[in-house]
Amino acid sequence: MIADRRVLDRVAFGPDGLIAAIAQQHDTGEVLMLAWMNADALAETLATGQACYFSRSRNRLWRKGESSGQTQRVVSVRLDCDQDAVLLLVDQTGVACHTGRRSCFYLEAGPDGLAEIAAPLVAPDQLYR
Amino acid sequence: MIADRRVLDRVAFGPDGLIAAIAQQHDTGEVLMLAWMNADALAETLATGQACYFSRSRNRLWRKGESSGQTQRVVSVRLDCDQDAVLLLVDQTGVACHTGRRSCFYLEAGPDGLAEIAAPLVAPDQLYR
Repeated sequence: MIADRRVLDRVAFGPDGLIAAIAQQHDTGEVLMLAWMNADALAETLATGQACYFSRSRNRLWRKGESSGQTQRVVSVRLDCDQDAVLLLVDQTGVACHTGRRSCFYLEAGPDGLAEIAAPLVAPDQLYR
Repeated sequence: MIADRRVLDRVAFGPDGLIAAIAQQHDTGEVLMLAWMNADALAETLATGQACYFSRSRNRLWRKGESSGQTQRVVSVRLDCDQDAVLLLVDQTGVACHTGRRSCFYLEAGPDGLAEIAAPLVAPDQLYR
């Protein structure tokens, strides 16, 4: 248990019951991904210390790494001034992105449109076997 | 101009026309805030190199720092793998948070609930005069 469940009462979930959650590598500061949490996902994260999100596409809890093994151990859970966004400091096992990249934010806007600024470290078909 | 407008065509705005945008201090890695952008806000950010968001509470463009002077010069604009989240690397003038703190994420979840882990650097009444 990394935090008391009473924290949940302070969270301003949106009308859809979700809150945006940023995952950041705790020691390097790299922003890894942005995902969503409902109350159950945040409660599970606080209880287990492993990042659990809510998958909007699958409409169910998404225990990060459940199929890929690329889990996130949670070091700190922070809320912002309006309590309507979450920042998770995590220790990412392997890669955060389903494309096999460390971070999901690998597309940079420039004069010629979007450019890929990071290559996959793992082939996606090796992540999901 | 830091990026071509064609980038806008690649962005997956939500049904409300908005996309979540994370602002991160470019050199220290500190996550400063999470806000929202519509197409006009992102277009202006790409054109001017100064962060412009969409304020959901005021229902209008929010040129960061327009009343506080705490502007964000944009160093890089990145999209994630699904093109439905934005990461801005910025150089923050002063403080990002309306409470006078450097980062909005100053509430940390722990065994006793939420604890403040950062103090204001500026009094809010000095920010909005």
